[in-house]
Amino acid sequence: MATKYLKNAVGRMIPEEINGKPVIPFQGVDKYITEGRRYAPPLASCAKYPSDGDKRVQDLKTALKKAGIKDGMTISTHHHFRNGDLVANQIFKAASEMGLKDLVWFPSASFPCHEPIIEYLKDGTIHHIEGSMNGPLGRFASLGGMNGTGVLRSHGGRYQAVQDGEVVIDIAVIAAPTADPFGNANGLTGESACGLLGFALADSQYAHKVIVVTDNLVSFPCVPWQIQGNYVDYVVEVDHVGIPEKIVSGTTRITRSPDRLYIAELTARFCDEVGIIRDGFSFQAGAGGTSLAIGNYFGEIMRQKGIKARFARGGSNQYLVDMLEEGLVEYILDGQTFDLAGVRSMRENPNHVNTSPFTSYNYHGKGNFAGLVDVVILGATEVDVNFNANVVTHSDGYLLHGIGGWQNCLFSKTVILPIPLFRDRIPIIRDEVTTICGPGELIDVIVTERGIAINPRRKDLIEKTRHSKLPITTIEALKEEAESICGVPEPVEVGERVIAAIKWVDGTVIDVVRQVIE
Amino acid sequence: MATKYLKNAVGRMIPEEINGKPVIPFQGVDKYITEGRRYAPPLASCAKYPSDGDKRVQDLKTALKKAGIKDGMTISTHHHFRNGDLVANQIFKAASEMGLKDLVWFPSASFPCHEPIIEYLKDGTIHHIEGSMNGPLGRFASLGGMNGTGVLRSHGGRYQAVQDGEVVIDIAVIAAPTADPFGNANGLTGESACGLLGFALADSQYAHKVIVVTDNLVSFPCVPWQIQGNYVDYVVEVDHVGIPEKIVSGTTRITRSPDRLYIAELTARFCDEVGIIRDGFSFQAGAGGTSLAIGNYFGEIMRQKGIKARFARGGSNQYLVDMLEEGLVEYILDGQTFDLAGVRSMRENPNHVNTSPFTSYNYHGKGNFAGLVDVVILGATEVDVNFNANVVTHSDGYLLHGIGGWQNCLFSKTVILPIPLFRDRIPIIRDEVTTICGPGELIDVIVTERGIAINPRRKDLIEKTRHSKLPITTIEALKEEAESICGVPEPVEVGERVIAAIKWVDGTVIDVVRQVIE
Repeated sequence: MATKYLKNAVGRMIPEEINGKPVIPFQGVDKYITEGRRYAPPLASCAKYPSDGDKRVQDLKTALKKAGIKDGMTISTHHHFRNGDLVANQIFKAASEMGLKDLVWFPSASFPCHEPIIEYLKDGTIHHIEGSMNGPLGRFASLGGMNGTGVLRSHGGRYQAVQDGEVVIDIAVIAAPTADPFGNANGLTGESACGLLGFALADSQYAHKVIVVTDNLVSFPCVPWQIQGNYVDYVVEVDHVGIPEKIVSGTTRITRSPDRLYIAELTARFCDEVGIIRDGFSFQAGAGGTSLAIGNYFGEIMRQKGIKARFARGGSNQYLVDMLEEGLVEYILDGQTFDLAGVRSMRENPNHVNTSPFTSYNYHGKGNFAGLVDVVILGATEVDVNFNANVVTHSDGYLLHGIGGWQNCLFSKTVILPIPLFRDRIPIIRDEVTTICGPGELIDVIVTERGIAINPRRKDLIEKTRHSKLPITTIEALKEEAESICGVPEPVEVGERVIAAIKWVDGTVIDVVRQVIE
Repeated sequence: MATKYLKNAVGRMIPEEINGKPVIPFQGVDKYITEGRRYAPPLASCAKYPSDGDKRVQDLKTALKKAGIKDGMTISTHHHFRNGDLVANQIFKAASEMGLKDLVWFPSASFPCHEPIIEYLKDGTIHHIEGSMNGPLGRFASLGGMNGTGVLRSHGGRYQAVQDGEVVIDIAVIAAPTADPFGNANGLTGESACGLLGFALADSQYAHKVIVVTDNLVSFPCVPWQIQGNYVDYVVEVDHVGIPEKIVSGTTRITRSPDRLYIAELTARFCDEVGIIRDGFSFQAGAGGTSLAIGNYFGEIMRQKGIKARFARGGSNQYLVDMLEEGLVEYILDGQTFDLAGVRSMRENPNHVNTSPFTSYNYHGKGNFAGLVDVVILGATEVDVNFNANVVTHSDGYLLHGIGGWQNCLFSKTVILPIPLFRDRIPIIRDEVTTICGPGELIDVIVTERGIAINPRRKDLIEKTRHSKLPITTIEALKEEAESICGVPEPVEVGERVIAAIKWVDGTVIDVVRQVIE
């Protein structure tokens, strides 16, 4: 039976079904209003849990068995340990040994350390992955290696999907730097300290069974309980949940590239000129080299003006922590700590606040924090002349990145993408992006080393920079300049088969990724 | 049509229906296992909320109208301001002015300050109250004044009922000492600071509409967000949410009554002799004069032994805070701050931890904290020879108290009731209690000024005190002694009509309260 396709609101052809489930095509920003109800997991009863609160079982395999693991189930994990995670591979090794088939892996993100998962995708233990596939897993999926279709969601979209029952998690495995036998857990202490466990919040609240795995068991109470033991079924002690040096970096550095530094400076000057950097403002940058440089320029401007920011949204790092401790920023609202300074600050400073995809990004909530942020600085692999942007595929068609909080942050008051005009002699600004992850109407400004393009929808910003000395130009002019240097890029040849779907924040499908023909 | 009655597992006759809804009679401790699912409220969408996160509306009446208030709805409030609450009466004044009828008021508790509600019960604005009725409202209900039947639940039972969808809250009104325009709120600061807002947690999570009312609006973010703005629909600013001096007391005092002091000393000595007071133990007392004295004795014993408690469950107060600050207690896990010292400590000390009925008491969770507490000290209005106890009615039949966390605490490892043998020449120990709130199998020890009775089920405690010099006796002997002094109490004459139901922690009905004939 031939798959039917429907054209969605950004003109992409979307299959009617993905992994056997019906699909709602993207209908435009703020257009699809759900009439559903929150997912309702089965009720528990204290009568079925140890009266002394001790939920420990001997090992992960035992916990999976007690949780009733069986063919076709959805198993979730989380990327708090990033490329240092030691737990996810163990789960599927155990599942493979048990002879299980067709599991769905639902990570909040996967990393190169999860390359061994390819074996379990090949042998049928795992049917498909729903979650970002950074690096080798993305390449494997791009070449058509997965039995099912990948589904990529933003951090907020992942919360939304779990909350809405779009994804029903049978078993959540939450790896925790510190936990008690009742299942209370946090990421603040222990040798694998990663800061916070927010990506596992939805899983703890809605999964049918929840297993906490830790290498640092403390006696009750584990305080603070970022994950609440009242949602936890089993606790497993292991030697190591992660490789500390791969979990958080000791240092993240500001870029030294003159081009990137110039882009950062332009971005900061732009924000200053249009009046974004004012007393009590808020911003979200990131932990990349250019973003750090932008934060640094923000700091200089604030010092000069004698003002401070009300809050900065994290990913936190040494630079942001320095700004908090200097008093330039009143609060860090942090979704992910990127270095040890971030972990320490979150542990010690009550103004360095633990957030979650629920508070910050969930579109099916009564608002979220993203909309309250004055300016957000994001990246992109490609941008088109309508300001649509791509963050998941490269121009060669390979799916190599996750969405992260990127889509969610597009709802901030001003969205700026500081990007180089080309990478490896491939222009970044195109007539059409390979994959649309964010609709252009939400993207306000593109800053490159050759000029700044403002989205025509933002008449206010255009007006404010009418007499500016900044190199204001148009997106078309930037595209032409890139093409005059690198030539017009060849279209990429892709196959028919859809290997992954890109969800929008409301659960609709904004685009799909097709198989790469090598 | 005559109401049918069924005898429950503690021998009480329970009507088949209450307020038109079917009833499940109490089936015994840990016997009724729910097969239901968590309540699933309608999903929200950010598209329907202000993009800048500002949810303020002009006044409470406007918020109620926007929330769609109509006849028959269930409106919830919370007792964080205890007898100083200024919000609940305003809600029903507004509702009465709007001509609404048959509302259900679902407070976490009501106090004498809510006496004006009687007017709205009389004029039909309110059909009945589900929640404890302390004082005047209880007296009014006892005399048959309410149109419907009151339903009393423990703090944990209230969370369970909301979580399970047994009570669907149409509109929750959460009065908060501090809040931001997004709806994040806490009880730590502001002139009405009450410590925490845990009793409103279930309401914020499950109510269809949530209104936050505050007299101390701060700019986003209100940190910490004990109530998460992502659950909140509207924010209302008022001049005063409470009367500070009635919210928390400046001082709570240890009893000076020689009898009460003696009971307290006996209780502490008993705990010491049976080995409860050991390094790393945990306890929950309370804020009454006798409980405070027991905590004080515990402190003395710990100092003598050079040990400390791992945690104490609050209601916190100056005495418990002193123990925390002295290092006698590592953590206070607090459900309610009873004085200003408790509020200050919770604001400043990360080891003074905010809990909720979900973490501490919810029986339909994957365990809760109550079972982890080594010893809990509780009160009672009456106890029978089978150790069944009453906390809601007096021996004259009047319903004058709520259940609070009392039922939930019965799941602690050892439950001790230190009570006087008689009050106002009425014996406390009876053949049958007026109302069974807790089954005797969960109550371990009764300590009176005339001796200590151990529940025969606790053979371990009987064994450990076999050679004790403590005045160990039997419950029958205590009853006889009381009757030899006060005489055998006359049975109370009550009517047929059921004026209130007493829920057990699992949602079943353990007893009912009947109308008092004056």
